[in-house]
Amino acid sequence: MTDSYETLKASIIALSVAKKYATLRDVLATMNAPDIASLFEDLEEVYVTRLFRLLPKELAADTFVEMDSDTQELLIKGFSDNELKEVIDELYVDDAVDLVEEMPANVVTRILMQADAEKRNLINEILRYPEDSAGSIMTTEYVELRPKMTAEDAIRQIRRSGIEKETINTCYVTSKKRELIGVVNIRQLIMAQSEVTMEEIMNGNVLSVKTTDDQELVAQQFSHYNLIAMPVVDHENRLVGIVTVDDVLDVIQEETTEDIEKMAAIVPQDKPYLKQSIFELWKSRMPWLLLLMISATFTGSIINGFENALQKFSILTGYIPMLMDTGGNSGSQASVTVIRGISLKEVDFEDLAKVIWKEIRVALLCGLTLAGANFVKLLTIDKYLLGLSGISVSVALTICLTLLITIACAKIVGCTLPLLAYKIGFDPAVMASPFITTIVDAISLLVYFKMASLILGIG
Amino acid sequence: MTDSYETLKASIIALSVAKKYATLRDVLATMNAPDIASLFEDLEEVYVTRLFRLLPKELAADTFVEMDSDTQELLIKGFSDNELKEVIDELYVDDAVDLVEEMPANVVTRILMQADAEKRNLINEILRYPEDSAGSIMTTEYVELRPKMTAEDAIRQIRRSGIEKETINTCYVTSKKRELIGVVNIRQLIMAQSEVTMEEIMNGNVLSVKTTDDQELVAQQFSHYNLIAMPVVDHENRLVGIVTVDDVLDVIQEETTEDIEKMAAIVPQDKPYLKQSIFELWKSRMPWLLLLMISATFTGSIINGFENALQKFSILTGYIPMLMDTGGNSGSQASVTVIRGISLKEVDFEDLAKVIWKEIRVALLCGLTLAGANFVKLLTIDKYLLGLSGISVSVALTICLTLLITIACAKIVGCTLPLLAYKIGFDPAVMASPFITTIVDAISLLVYFKMASLILGIG
Repeated sequence: MTDSYETLKASIIALSVAKKYATLRDVLATMNAPDIASLFEDLEEVYVTRLFRLLPKELAADTFVEMDSDTQELLIKGFSDNELKEVIDELYVDDAVDLVEEMPANVVTRILMQADAEKRNLINEILRYPEDSAGSIMTTEYVELRPKMTAEDAIRQIRRSGIEKETINTCYVTSKKRELIGVVNIRQLIMAQSEVTMEEIMNGNVLSVKTTDDQELVAQQFSHYNLIAMPVVDHENRLVGIVTVDDVLDVIQEETTEDIEKMAAIVPQDKPYLKQSIFELWKSRMPWLLLLMISATFTGSIINGFENALQKFSILTGYIPMLMDTGGNSGSQASVTVIRGISLKEVDFEDLAKVIWKEIRVALLCGLTLAGANFVKLLTIDKYLLGLSGISVSVALTICLTLLITIACAKIVGCTLPLLAYKIGFDPAVMASPFITTIVDAISLLVYFKMASLILGIG
Repeated sequence: MTDSYETLKASIIALSVAKKYATLRDVLATMNAPDIASLFEDLEEVYVTRLFRLLPKELAADTFVEMDSDTQELLIKGFSDNELKEVIDELYVDDAVDLVEEMPANVVTRILMQADAEKRNLINEILRYPEDSAGSIMTTEYVELRPKMTAEDAIRQIRRSGIEKETINTCYVTSKKRELIGVVNIRQLIMAQSEVTMEEIMNGNVLSVKTTDDQELVAQQFSHYNLIAMPVVDHENRLVGIVTVDDVLDVIQEETTEDIEKMAAIVPQDKPYLKQSIFELWKSRMPWLLLLMISATFTGSIINGFENALQKFSILTGYIPMLMDTGGNSGSQASVTVIRGISLKEVDFEDLAKVIWKEIRVALLCGLTLAGANFVKLLTIDKYLLGLSGISVSVALTICLTLLITIACAKIVGCTLPLLAYKIGFDPAVMASPFITTIVDAISLLVYFKMASLILGIG
């Protein structure tokens, strides 16, 4: 696929250089907007504006929406006012809003000047909704029907107005006050006898979200109810827009990326990785690194406190990384499983006892397996093959018991912290590997030295 | 929301106990299938079958599809053959396939016996496709049109057959040999003059996937092209089914969960966490724990090799956890960012040089900040406040230079390994925190002892 893409790109460049515009127009017209957009992002600047002008109006607008903001900005700067107006007229309101949010101030002014008054008002209205709210991702283009309309009226209304609507698959029935009272899908309209009214066929049990609801909640509703569109109402239950499933796919990807970043001790960023400057990357990575480094210092001071013990049984030092790492990994497994369970709504705070009980038993199974394997390895490979003379049965016991207890503590801490964070309204994703690892490191050392003092009589 | 849910549940139980079936029927009919399904999962067994029988036919089938497999099994076991047949007749083929895949063998036999011959054949056909392929998630219910049909014919055909189809929003135009040649959406049909033929309005540039394509590829196409349905063709380009966006949402969630689990050193499982037995959890967590534990042993042996140095400068031991953890966290940040970039198709192997160059600069920024902070802390807090007499300027320099170099190595290893894994066809998600941490631990210790020998003259 990449190869054929490279071939296509090469021939388009060759055609551009040769100024074969008629051929180019035909080639581009056979392509899909997202593919043309990717192609334009890879082309040199001089070709982009020239090729864009060859696209039919509607394809041009669709392609424009799919491009990254750098290419969009480049194009807008090359546009005459008339060209800009043509593109903006073709844009859906939600796409126009996305554009305005990405562009620098001077470009935004030009865009709003070229938009007609109605569109400008709609754009400004959506811009007022809080970031990541249902209002900010909705579009105001939908089909609105009245309860007394017949199926024939409805289809006529769709034919008259529908061509501009982003989706006509679901139509909404509203009262005179524009309150949302029902939903009719296109299937029902086509199936219905022409004289049947909307109130007879509509589903009055209609799901909706409020403009101020979080986009993550909207995405959950789409998954839970298998929707392709969802109405957005204001606080008086008046219909003000719809959210469509293609935007929800983007929301899901965005929210997942945020979760994954938080789990890796990164402060989430809006931009894709390759678009972030090194200072932006630095800013998103430093806070947690610094905080975790300071916490790790405390772990270090535990070692300092047991300096004498380690001097006497220096063989113990070499097993610190293994104990800390295995503890950290065990804890991460539990925490990440629970975090994902929470975000998929499979696990809730009420399951805490069930989860802890499960993790304790898994920890014992994992701990016994690993401790057993280690015990054998210590007394065979390490003692005889590697010739570590410091290893005795009591040393091996110290290490293996520490391992068992550390794994148990790690799993309990790992599954508990995300659920507690969730309960008190913090983001559970933060309670993942890096954070858990730091806590478990300290625990493993404390257990280690406690065991050493009990079994080996030092400390 | 949870509170009102608990109230609803309580009143439904109360109504069941009081045998107010007419009231229950009315209450249930106002609810959505996914909500009824959640409710049933929480109810005691005795109520489930009884309440299920109160649901209208179509709602019963929709609810059945939304329930977890335990509740489905419970219901099927309580059904008479006739009841089972009624439910199966209402199921879409893809939902019936999902059901068959989840049930134990004896239940499957009963299901297939009650399905009519046509549905049974379709189910068996889909079951033959490999797991996680496009064929395995498609449905065979779609609207198929012919190129010479007029818009009026098409709408008549939809009215005749469409009521059974899972989606009629997109219709497919096929040749006599059933080869896919175009796509028409319902909007175009409604807008068209009644005598216009399909070949005049269809889009002949139709995107499709093959039955054997991976479901992850299908999901990517949906995101990239903003689709709500996509046709699936066999290797002769004959239309055999469609995939709808609601199934794609599930695929995205499933694939993301798998990625996240791999990043946390867990072997992915199909079942939700709370449904997994402790042995299943043990099996999914042990392999990586064991492998990583063995690797960490090598790290330990580095420490053993420098036992003498540590005896002389015992102050150095206390900073090992901080160096290892900070290195691990820095590496994880880079690897997780790159892994997510790869799965969102934002980063490719060709970007390797660009990525490494970016990470080196970010590493220097982060490293200098952290090393600087540490240097000051070592010579003030640690030396005077904590009274660690072993700390000198050269010791502080050893620790801080190690930190700087470790962070640089960690970021380079962290960003390189996932891209290399991707290039040679391995899953990049495995190259995440636990794996990177283990490598970086060893690197940090090697650098530490090298620095100690250079600056402090020991080793």
